[in-house]
Amino acid sequence: MEKFELHILGCGSALPTTRHFSTSQVVNLREKLYMIDCGEGTQLQLRKSRLKFSRLNHIFISHLHGDHCFGLPGLISTFGLLGRTADLHIYSPKGLQEIMGPMLSFFCNGLSYQVIFHEFETKQPSVIYEDRSVTVTTIPLKHRIPCCGFLFEEKALPNHIIREMVDFYQVPVYELNRIKNGADYVTPGGEVIPNSRLTRPSDPPKKYAYCSDTIYKKGIVEQIAGVDLLFHEATFAQSEAARAKETYHTTAEQAALIARDAKVKKLIIGHFSARYEDENILLKEASAVFPETILAKETLCVSL
Amino acid sequence: MEKFELHILGCGSALPTTRHFSTSQVVNLREKLYMIDCGEGTQLQLRKSRLKFSRLNHIFISHLHGDHCFGLPGLISTFGLLGRTADLHIYSPKGLQEIMGPMLSFFCNGLSYQVIFHEFETKQPSVIYEDRSVTVTTIPLKHRIPCCGFLFEEKALPNHIIREMVDFYQVPVYELNRIKNGADYVTPGGEVIPNSRLTRPSDPPKKYAYCSDTIYKKGIVEQIAGVDLLFHEATFAQSEAARAKETYHTTAEQAALIARDAKVKKLIIGHFSARYEDENILLKEASAVFPETILAKETLCVSL
Repeated sequence: MEKFELHILGCGSALPTTRHFSTSQVVNLREKLYMIDCGEGTQLQLRKSRLKFSRLNHIFISHLHGDHCFGLPGLISTFGLLGRTADLHIYSPKGLQEIMGPMLSFFCNGLSYQVIFHEFETKQPSVIYEDRSVTVTTIPLKHRIPCCGFLFEEKALPNHIIREMVDFYQVPVYELNRIKNGADYVTPGGEVIPNSRLTRPSDPPKKYAYCSDTIYKKGIVEQIAGVDLLFHEATFAQSEAARAKETYHTTAEQAALIARDAKVKKLIIGHFSARYEDENILLKEASAVFPETILAKETLCVSL
Repeated sequence: MEKFELHILGCGSALPTTRHFSTSQVVNLREKLYMIDCGEGTQLQLRKSRLKFSRLNHIFISHLHGDHCFGLPGLISTFGLLGRTADLHIYSPKGLQEIMGPMLSFFCNGLSYQVIFHEFETKQPSVIYEDRSVTVTTIPLKHRIPCCGFLFEEKALPNHIIREMVDFYQVPVYELNRIKNGADYVTPGGEVIPNSRLTRPSDPPKKYAYCSDTIYKKGIVEQIAGVDLLFHEATFAQSEAARAKETYHTTAEQAALIARDAKVKKLIIGHFSARYEDENILLKEASAVFPETILAKETLCVSL
């Protein structure tokens, strides 16, 4: 099975605490790393995670609140000190480049690599990144400022060749790639060997959805239906439901309702308000609605 | 004795490691806090230190390298979220306000308090701050960009009244403040009681000098002579003396030579290069020249 892991670097909310860093995560998909959000201290947490800095080329910023992007100048600067040469792509709602530009051009002057900013609209889902392993689509959320989550959809791997059958039919090596990708084999004698006899399907591709920060928004259920893992913010417990609505955040119970309605396989909640010294109250409330819930935690790694 | 403590929040250098945060310290002088430098993650370390955020009104930035100031946006933003109302004063070499301005005006829009930037020249020592407890003077250093250390000089406290003598001479209460400040007492009968019989001197005022980042610069010895505590950067061991010179940093041995020549009471070294997994080599080299040396360490608190 190909690697598809989620690493939590930080899962606190706006106010840092002694237990939580502000938001950042890394998706490790087949040894390529994709960062989601980059709060202050992300580079420290990235180093602790032992993930390889050089495998990270894409950073997705959900929205322009400080606790989701104040770690960028330090990360960019450190990559420069380490002699990075590969381009670094940063995807975000409009404005990030203008806002961070003066800091970056002063402190990261003469970088050994390029930082390339990409802006996305936040009203409609749109594919903002694609490579041979993954497609990343925005999930429009509703927060105090323009904000999107991200849907990571793994691409199907080619089928696995069944070595014994290929040997049996004496399939030439140059035909193997076509067969992996679904073609039938025609023998020199004209016999058609159906692909299904020569290959077994690879593992079904997986999906990860990241939804933070947002008010309880049922509208996202359709887009994230059936994902293998959903990260949803759960800033507050139900007793603070009014406060959640007022500040455009979600309660743990509401996050679980989204997970249940979207029939996801697993829910991980985070973006905890600093007021909770013990997040088990959030876990309890969410699990009552959707039992397959876990709490995010710094250094936690979840395999999909 | 009045409180005069140094809290180390971070003592790494430009590249963060799993063991060190980038540079930041807090001087606690009679329960007023003064921050020196503010690298990424400072607000997290400040919270861990349990020092009271509300007692911090002044931040001194030695120079405009990211590892000495990338923590400012997060700190300023958090103070706002906590509802701070007192002005926050930031002292630095020229340019900080222009560089951070766009980020602050976007992310910290509508702050409940004022951030006031003060610029200082870096060529000559100058008093940049003074209140009734302390005077802060710049210590011109020599780094790749304009850079100053800071000399914190405590102001003398009034003498202590000797209760028994004051009772003996039946000194009226309204005379006590004058006597604390050095006046003699004249009895109703005209007898002059010298101040020295009525008071004991308070503890001699103390001095703390912070010197980072800098190439080995003997010129500072005179200004910091006799301080109670000297923090001096010691980025490298002696084997990297050439690299230290090239990058305008100091070796541990050189830091100790400064301490010895300045006849300081105690030396604390920090700003360790990420290459040292164990800084005891730096301690050993410094101690050989100046035995009263200690290693900086996150969460360390030194009383002067």
